Amino acid sequence: MPDNAPLQTTTAAAGLSRYGQIAAALQARIVSGDWAPGSAIPAEGALAREFGIALGTIRQAIAVLVQQGLLERVQGKGTFVRRGLSGASLMRFFRFGGADGAPVVPRSEILSCRAVRLDKAMAARFGLASGARGLAISRRRWLEQTPRLLESIWLPLPRCEALQQLPPAQWGDLLYPLLGSACGVTVHRAVDEVTFRTLAADEAALLMLPDAHPCAVVTRHAFDLAGHCIEYRLTRGDAFAFRYTADVR
Amino acid sequence: MPDNAPLQTTTAAAGLSRYGQIAAALQARIVSGDWAPGSAIPAEGALAREFGIALGTIRQAIAVLVQQGLLERVQGKGTFVRRGLSGASLMRFFRFGGADGAPVVPRSEILSCRAVRLDKAMAARFGLASGARGLAISRRRWLEQTPRLLESIWLPLPRCEALQQLPPAQWGDLLYPLLGSACGVTVHRAVDEVTFRTLAADEAALLMLPDAHPCAVVTRHAFDLAGHCIEYRLTRGDAFAFRYTADVR
Repeated sequence: MPDNAPLQTTTAAAGLSRYGQIAAALQARIVSGDWAPGSAIPAEGALAREFGIALGTIRQAIAVLVQQGLLERVQGKGTFVRRGLSGASLMRFFRFGGADGAPVVPRSEILSCRAVRLDKAMAARFGLASGARGLAISRRRWLEQTPRLLESIWLPLPRCEALQQLPPAQWGDLLYPLLGSACGVTVHRAVDEVTFRTLAADEAALLMLPDAHPCAVVTRHAFDLAGHCIEYRLTRGDAFAFRYTADVR
Repeated sequence: MPDNAPLQTTTAAAGLSRYGQIAAALQARIVSGDWAPGSAIPAEGALAREFGIALGTIRQAIAVLVQQGLLERVQGKGTFVRRGLSGASLMRFFRFGGADGAPVVPRSEILSCRAVRLDKAMAARFGLASGARGLAISRRRWLEQTPRLLESIWLPLPRCEALQQLPPAQWGDLLYPLLGSACGVTVHRAVDEVTFRTLAADEAALLMLPDAHPCAVVTRHAFDLAGHCIEYRLTRGDAFAFRYTADVR
């Protein structure tokens, strides 16, 4: 279970190797937006000259950020700042209806969105004190005429304040592109934990499933570029539609 | 869903880059057992001289095999041939009882083991013709006094013939070390697909759970060093004990 501590520790220069220090400096450019998501970073030779280091050292620093998923190498094209997660990825846990396997973005219906006082555990996830303010969102996701997923989403305030000003009808179907455009937050990483239980009566009604039907629960912690938790989400869906593949080496 | 085609294609030299050809040559040494699991490979400089190539090229070739999981680098110690999977890893999908999180090997009870004719789909997984012979094993796994997992395992014959000669009482709790010692098969990779359904009456009785209780089903394809499917396994366990964490970047 991830706690609130930032997950990338390259920001602390103390005790770091030379390439670790350079990696921290490059990460700062990504976090600040100086290097924008989707853009190419300067050539390795230019960076080596700028920092006054060997080409091998800049390559090691870049390898660290590739490994962290902040940068990606594109064969024959260069090294790019990775775009944030699209947010559609919870669908990878389920297979509803059509077997063609094409990625689908379910339609989003915002059931409620309100500012709340966060309890101690929720506040701690965001690095906030108990009683800090947050946004609590209830969302239902549809595929064609069937409700498929039920989501309870918590976001920290004031960081996601801009979302409150925007009518839910203008949110679109994906949360993460909205967090980017409205709040300047890039969601870079998510940790999903899957468990199973049965649906409560209110959940079953919203998902149009029988009371006490088995459901998969995906508990998500999402993180920004600096490694801070920026979203906590509980997603419920029909257990019998769950399908997930893991590769073990 | 993996099909029967070998998953590592570095064995075909045609159309490969220079480092790809070297990677194929190094893979052949691992598959043949010339480089044994757990052993260190020769120094990069020695390999570069042996193949008459630049140090950078041998490093690229080694990186390919590290990425495939055939080799692993150990900081300050060198590069090693990875040992096969231990076989205990299905437990990572479940959390039974004690919350201390220590890895546990459940006790194995072989319910049956018999040679069978494989149907077309099963034979195809192993690259065999319909009607080829295989070993069908039914196994129950216990933690203390409770049966936790029910497994149906298929292995190809004659490759796993040696298992038939060995009384189940001598098998021990883990299959993969046994496949290594008795049959010379190293299980290098497994692809697990998780779905959910309810237990059939006979399954429920063996797991001491109520009839039609929700269960997690893990469908495993396991592969040897050459990328051939060497095991197909269906594992069933209590859905409410399922717990799995996925990291998305």
